[in-house]
Amino acid sequence: MPLTEDQHAEIAAQRARQTATLRATAPGMEARLYAAHPVLDHGLIRVIDYMGDDAAITQAARVSYGAGTKHVSNDEGLIRYLMRHWHSTPFEMCEVKFHVKLPVFVARQWIRHRTANVNEYSARYSILDREFYIPAPEHLAAQSTVNNQGRGAVLEGAEAQRVLDLLRDDATRAYDHYEAMLSQEGQQGLARELARMNLPANVYTQWYWKIDLHNLFHFLRLRADSHAQYEIRAYAEVMCEIVKDWVPLAYAAFEDYRLGAVTLSAKAIDVLKRRLHGEVVTAETSGMSKGEWREFCGTFD
Amino acid sequence: MPLTEDQHAEIAAQRARQTATLRATAPGMEARLYAAHPVLDHGLIRVIDYMGDDAAITQAARVSYGAGTKHVSNDEGLIRYLMRHWHSTPFEMCEVKFHVKLPVFVARQWIRHRTANVNEYSARYSILDREFYIPAPEHLAAQSTVNNQGRGAVLEGAEAQRVLDLLRDDATRAYDHYEAMLSQEGQQGLARELARMNLPANVYTQWYWKIDLHNLFHFLRLRADSHAQYEIRAYAEVMCEIVKDWVPLAYAAFEDYRLGAVTLSAKAIDVLKRRLHGEVVTAETSGMSKGEWREFCGTFD
Amino acid sequence: MPLTEDQHAEIAAQRARQTATLRATAPGMEARLYAAHPVLDHGLIRVIDYMGDDAAITQAARVSYGAGTKHVSNDEGLIRYLMRHWHSTPFEMCEVKFHVKLPVFVARQWIRHRTANVNEYSARYSILDREFYIPAPEHLAAQSTVNNQGRGAVLEGAEAQRVLDLLRDDATRAYDHYEAMLSQEGQQGLARELARMNLPANVYTQWYWKIDLHNLFHFLRLRADSHAQYEIRAYAEVMCEIVKDWVPLAYAAFEDYRLGAVTLSAKAIDVLKRRLHGEVVTAETSGMSKGEWREFCGTFD
Amino acid sequence: MPLTEDQHAEIAAQRARQTATLRATAPGMEARLYAAHPVLDHGLIRVIDYMGDDAAITQAARVSYGAGTKHVSNDEGLIRYLMRHWHSTPFEMCEVKFHVKLPVFVARQWIRHRTANVNEYSARYSILDREFYIPAPEHLAAQSTVNNQGRGAVLEGAEAQRVLDLLRDDATRAYDHYEAMLSQEGQQGLARELARMNLPANVYTQWYWKIDLHNLFHFLRLRADSHAQYEIRAYAEVMCEIVKDWVPLAYAAFEDYRLGAVTLSAKAIDVLKRRLHGEVVTAETSGMSKGEWREFCGTFD
Repeated sequence: MPLTEDQHAEIAAQRARQTATLRATAPGMEARLYAAHPVLDHGLIRVIDYMGDDAAITQAARVSYGAGTKHVSNDEGLIRYLMRHWHSTPFEMCEVKFHVKLPVFVARQWIRHRTANVNEYSARYSILDREFYIPAPEHLAAQSTVNNQGRGAVLEGAEAQRVLDLLRDDATRAYDHYEAMLSQEGQQGLARELARMNLPANVYTQWYWKIDLHNLFHFLRLRADSHAQYEIRAYAEVMCEIVKDWVPLAYAAFEDYRLGAVTLSAKAIDVLKRRLHGEVVTAETSGMSKGEWREFCGTFD
Repeated sequence: MPLTEDQHAEIAAQRARQTATLRATAPGMEARLYAAHPVLDHGLIRVIDYMGDDAAITQAARVSYGAGTKHVSNDEGLIRYLMRHWHSTPFEMCEVKFHVKLPVFVARQWIRHRTANVNEYSARYSILDREFYIPAPEHLAAQSTVNNQGRGAVLEGAEAQRVLDLLRDDATRAYDHYEAMLSQEGQQGLARELARMNLPANVYTQWYWKIDLHNLFHFLRLRADSHAQYEIRAYAEVMCEIVKDWVPLAYAAFEDYRLGAVTLSAKAIDVLKRRLHGEVVTAETSGMSKGEWREFCGTFD
Repeated sequence: MPLTEDQHAEIAAQRARQTATLRATAPGMEARLYAAHPVLDHGLIRVIDYMGDDAAITQAARVSYGAGTKHVSNDEGLIRYLMRHWHSTPFEMCEVKFHVKLPVFVARQWIRHRTANVNEYSARYSILDREFYIPAPEHLAAQSTVNNQGRGAVLEGAEAQRVLDLLRDDATRAYDHYEAMLSQEGQQGLARELARMNLPANVYTQWYWKIDLHNLFHFLRLRADSHAQYEIRAYAEVMCEIVKDWVPLAYAAFEDYRLGAVTLSAKAIDVLKRRLHGEVVTAETSGMSKGEWREFCGTFD
Repeated sequence: MPLTEDQHAEIAAQRARQTATLRATAPGMEARLYAAHPVLDHGLIRVIDYMGDDAAITQAARVSYGAGTKHVSNDEGLIRYLMRHWHSTPFEMCEVKFHVKLPVFVARQWIRHRTANVNEYSARYSILDREFYIPAPEHLAAQSTVNNQGRGAVLEGAEAQRVLDLLRDDATRAYDHYEAMLSQEGQQGLARELARMNLPANVYTQWYWKIDLHNLFHFLRLRADSHAQYEIRAYAEVMCEIVKDWVPLAYAAFEDYRLGAVTLSAKAIDVLKRRLHGEVVTAETSGMSKGEWREFCGTFD
């Protein structure tokens, strides 16, 4: 993600423009504002704006609970209590706006999270840049043989090279033809809204994406998970680092009660209780399906 | 809405705490932050936080349209274009958080707007204050005889007095009994979550309410309208003044294309065209229903 | 909830009107359609319409996963897999519409679930019925001394009687005055939209409520939980029975992976692992807060 | 959109499976259920399920308004009243589920309508079919010279042929390479979630899409509009025909008050009033911007 001179200058200008405000300010976020955090080969995440901090969460919760919760004397305890008991509305009181540059196939997964605001660069109005995601060799993986939706071993040797060549050549050719169809030299030039259909799903797009903290946590829980596709996880992991700086107490609670947590079914609770009482429980005596038993053992064995 | 000494001091303290930020700042909103704007007899609206300004709208739109819209050279023109053509997503890029104190029957209408974040003071956890909405004499109106959902003439004389007495006496008694049931002196004391059921719908509650500008405009269009119930309109009108200070260009476009606008049906367009060509169109020859004709004449006659 | 003769006749008429359809039909739901399921003293739940069945969930999931998931050979296994891995969109493909009669203070909790469609009986247009929720003696509970949002022991003797008398008398008087203010005999009559403010929060209202199965499960997980206020839980429990008849496979998965499940934090997982290895872990060595430790022990001890 | 023999047989089987139901049934929709309505060159729309009919709208509205609206004696009048006055909730009481096959670049516009439920065929789990949208000659248009987001004249002769050749050749080659990278013959085979990135935006995908009638009308107003891109408008127009058969009264009101309607700004209303009083108003004396004046004249001149 080499930014142009102009882009570096624009970010520097944005970071130089400081004003006074009466609003809640999060120092960890001020330090990150506007800066480009690189992701994948040409992608980026920038924080454009934010609203609220850890205190905004407890402030909203205390309107919810009024004087009644005074016994949770500090913000950390209250935030952990709220997270543990699935009180989502106080976390909705914080909001963040990102500028993201990402491949179209990642954007298509991402947009499925509906409770967010989006303005995407329009290929109906404008011409997309010549930038495509080409996986780094260590992320070029074979289809998993055990998981229909996952990756297996990293491709190597001639096969890896062949894939990289195909991806690069096809993207280049598709973009050359996109430009050729758009061109108005010696011809009318195809409408942009039509020409874009020739571009592959690894072309980069960009958007402004705004979301509240509760829904962002939901996004991160699913997309920073080890089962998420690597390419979207790369974005989620950068956002985790950003959120940690923004609302450190809320992020720590999120890490403990969501990211690092496990939901046990009624059957799994029963198996654990039996084990704690010394019983040896097997797949057969657990009452679980094979898949569930495998996942259960993955956590506790 | 007489604030207590403590509340005045808290607001003064909030307004004294200025910090530096790199974020977009709206001077008109900074001037209003935290201050209590009175509504009805005990209600209030306070701005607690905001994100974005007029420029944030065009900035997001320009990601959408990229180089394509460079011909709309200025922010005002672009904002008016977006509003006129129902482009809603750029307006979603601004966000505002209010603290509102309002009667429960107003809260029940308000909450029907679902695309917002809410934390309400909980009468399960806490004890509500002894404050009730009693209409000012000029807002004590009879049932409309032509509109099932509206008000007619202002009540006068003995009837008005009787109504005010009933409202005040019943509210007072209900609150006395609420306290009596809650009391733990010489008895166990009823659970708060049950005792609250004795309170009437004019008791005041309060909440934090956070919403994006597009959805706020939608709320204001419906609730600042002359057909809205006076009590919720009173809140909407104060918010209109606040939004005008926050995003003056967007608000002016909203006023022209939404608040002051009229949607003409295919039939109404046809009638206008015939009139412009000199034809005298009557209710009978308009093809409209009585209700629609009456509303149409209300706009153009 | 004694229905009137007219209401009984209307339900009988609705249940007599059978037509042929090509749509998916759920026999367990057909048996319940339109019938009034009583809740609390005057409340009810009726199923007015539904869309989809268990097969609609797997059908939608198979579009999601295409040929790839053929190895999950049967509907039950696939539904359990989807529930276990938080795949929510297939469950959104089923929809249900209820007619609910409920006290206003319950409606106020209920409406906080935003992802649903609602049409409520309007007290601006119409006059509410003279019906109030008065708790049965066994649900008349004291404020909990350990939980700010909960109930303690059942009230007894004179205190219980006093509470019931206050609730009944205040509701009756409030309604008498509501009618007196509305009356147009010998006076103008107060607008309905104003008169309603005199009614207490235990007056019954009614609405049509339509929601998809995923969001209904979310509602039921929170509201059929033992920590939910009894009065809304009473509705949730009736809906659980209805859903069990509608989509038995999905409901069984919901029961196992949500209703009867527990989410373990990273700390709790660590404690369990240590215990399984024979270590005696105490509150002090657990790293948990007091509240969290108490809840943890509630599950496993 | 030539269906396979298997697909024809499956649809015939679905249409042969009739059951009895107590639910509201819409005859116009029963006639369309499951059948494939062709769109573009390989796309289709199928109705998979629906809930409600015209009567469901007024039934819900009458709960909203109770006895108060009895004076709107018939369903048609009430539905037109609700549409005219922007009462959206009664229309939310109807729901429909479509199966849609569509090019990815159309899917990307479509998914921006967030208030809907979607399950898309997953190219992470499964292999996409070899089907691409290639515009018919009459839809192969040049970039508009006056509208950055629109089309101009139809391309002709050698340029048209060149574009069609490029689109077809690039799509074919991209798909060949997609298959080559996936292949497990003599190599490991690239993960499906990676290989898909080579496919262009005119490849067909498919999804189940479920939405309520209010939000569907909103979608249709924007996407059946003459300014919408032709390729998504083609889908919207087929859905308009379907909705007309489903809820004929609601659709007629939608046509009159939305599709064929125009929103006049405060300025435009002023100009019309002046014209009706005989004044000759010009662009200069209108107070409108050039763009607004041009649009205004497009309606009334």
